Amino acid sequence: MLQNKIGIIGLGSMGYGIAQSILRAGHKTFGFDMDSAKVSQFIAEGGEQSPLSENISQLDIVVVVVLNAAQTEQVLFGENGIVEKLKNGACVIACATVPPEFARTMNDKCMRQNICYLDAPISGGSKKAASGDLSIMAAGPEKTFAAAKPALDAMAENVFNLGEDVGTGSAMKAVNQLLAGVHIAAMAEAITFGISQGISPELFTQIIPKCAGSSWMLENRAPHIVAGDYTPHSSVDIWPKDLGIVLDIAKQSKFPAPITAAALQQFIAASACGLGQEDDAAVAKIYARNAGLELPEQQNNNEVK
Amino acid sequence: MLQNKIGIIGLGSMGYGIAQSILRAGHKTFGFDMDSAKVSQFIAEGGEQSPLSENISQLDIVVVVVLNAAQTEQVLFGENGIVEKLKNGACVIACATVPPEFARTMNDKCMRQNICYLDAPISGGSKKAASGDLSIMAAGPEKTFAAAKPALDAMAENVFNLGEDVGTGSAMKAVNQLLAGVHIAAMAEAITFGISQGISPELFTQIIPKCAGSSWMLENRAPHIVAGDYTPHSSVDIWPKDLGIVLDIAKQSKFPAPITAAALQQFIAASACGLGQEDDAAVAKIYARNAGLELPEQQNNNEVK
Repeated sequence: MLQNKIGIIGLGSMGYGIAQSILRAGHKTFGFDMDSAKVSQFIAEGGEQSPLSENISQLDIVVVVVLNAAQTEQVLFGENGIVEKLKNGACVIACATVPPEFARTMNDKCMRQNICYLDAPISGGSKKAASGDLSIMAAGPEKTFAAAKPALDAMAENVFNLGEDVGTGSAMKAVNQLLAGVHIAAMAEAITFGISQGISPELFTQIIPKCAGSSWMLENRAPHIVAGDYTPHSSVDIWPKDLGIVLDIAKQSKFPAPITAAALQQFIAASACGLGQEDDAAVAKIYARNAGLELPEQQNNNEVK
Repeated sequence: MLQNKIGIIGLGSMGYGIAQSILRAGHKTFGFDMDSAKVSQFIAEGGEQSPLSENISQLDIVVVVVLNAAQTEQVLFGENGIVEKLKNGACVIACATVPPEFARTMNDKCMRQNICYLDAPISGGSKKAASGDLSIMAAGPEKTFAAAKPALDAMAENVFNLGEDVGTGSAMKAVNQLLAGVHIAAMAEAITFGISQGISPELFTQIIPKCAGSSWMLENRAPHIVAGDYTPHSSVDIWPKDLGIVLDIAKQSKFPAPITAAALQQFIAASACGLGQEDDAAVAKIYARNAGLELPEQQNNNEVK
């Protein structure tokens, strides 16, 4: 395999896992984060010691794994932005959830400097980032997919090639997030409604996955409520951000989305009540509080399982 | 196998399929419906010729497959109600979606006359009714399950025994309907939002089922929108009824359910616009109309597939 020089900007829970997966695939891998402790930790695991900022002109691919559109723009075109320092034909893989129109703007600006831009939002959570099993909803010219391939192969189990129109990746991600967020909140609404009718969360979790009311999110998150375990695999605060993006885009397109709007309110309430850093299943606590119900407590972790 | 005498009251699309499944299992099967043409049709297929009303005292089991609580009460205890005519120990299998409290009331009244009552809402649609592959969310004493077994075996692929507290079957059905209705409307919201962002329903239906945004209902109903085929396997008008029951129960229990309420409004709009008898995926037409978008037209059925 050809060894590439690949940079990862943003070593949060997703970016760190991506960096590990790319390193494991045998590439010269440079990590960067505002938090220098994360950079040092990655170097200790085998990342390149020389700072990413001093090696930008040599990189073949940069994976940008930051929080949102503003941070993406800052990394690419802000003070010390990387695009003007990258070599001709280098490839930016942009992973944040952003509005499609923003992705198109970034692509246009990159093209003018002979940089390839892949509109490539990611899905799957931190565990799959670390194991190289993400799903990526990607759009861009074939040439860009070819340039990005070494990193994509290392990062992802599924790369959905949505065609060459940049923005389609971000649009599909928005569609997916609309559904995922609504389904988490609907699960929370249903499991607590069940409690109000004498159905325990345990019974709910045994029966509903076998019925027409099931969803991927329900099967994944309802067990957290049964266990009373709100360790954040994906946090409540993701959803005011992502459903906010969905509704911003929808409003710009004059698209009314009443169910998404209702779900967003529940996540905002959860965040307002101090649950923002808990697992997103904690939105059920808002329902329980509003209806005067009790959710299962976490069992002692030292118990035999 | 012991041959039982079993009556089915209500030969709509679900009840007729149930009657066929019970007949196929070898029981002496009596069908009744207000529409005498359906009774005649069932007799022509092998149902007993003697009217159900003249044979009530001989029946071992009566499956009541009517629209709602009011019709169920009418059949059991109204003018010419069957309960006072049934023999001691006969079993009523009550399949309509009803409030749990109603099921408990019916059970109490049946017990006083030595009639077994199984709280047994059904799920799965008319095809599965006809093939004997329904799911049944059932609650009642073990004695009642034993009495109902010949009919349950013929009707259902899955019988979920939710315990002996009558009402738990209806409560679980309400929980499932909450989720199923919300997921259909969320699918409609997402697929039309996708159109507004340049994502075709075809692409949506290829990608989302492989992602975290998927649901059982999405995988089942989104293809109807792609095909432009709104033949009612399950109609829009089911949902104002069933989500209405969910919200009635929720209100009685002082349980706020904002996402269910938002979904219900979309189904009410669909029904108001004359789509009540179309497949429930037609709720997408409300979204398309509100946003000025076009859904796929039905392809010519004579085309080679």
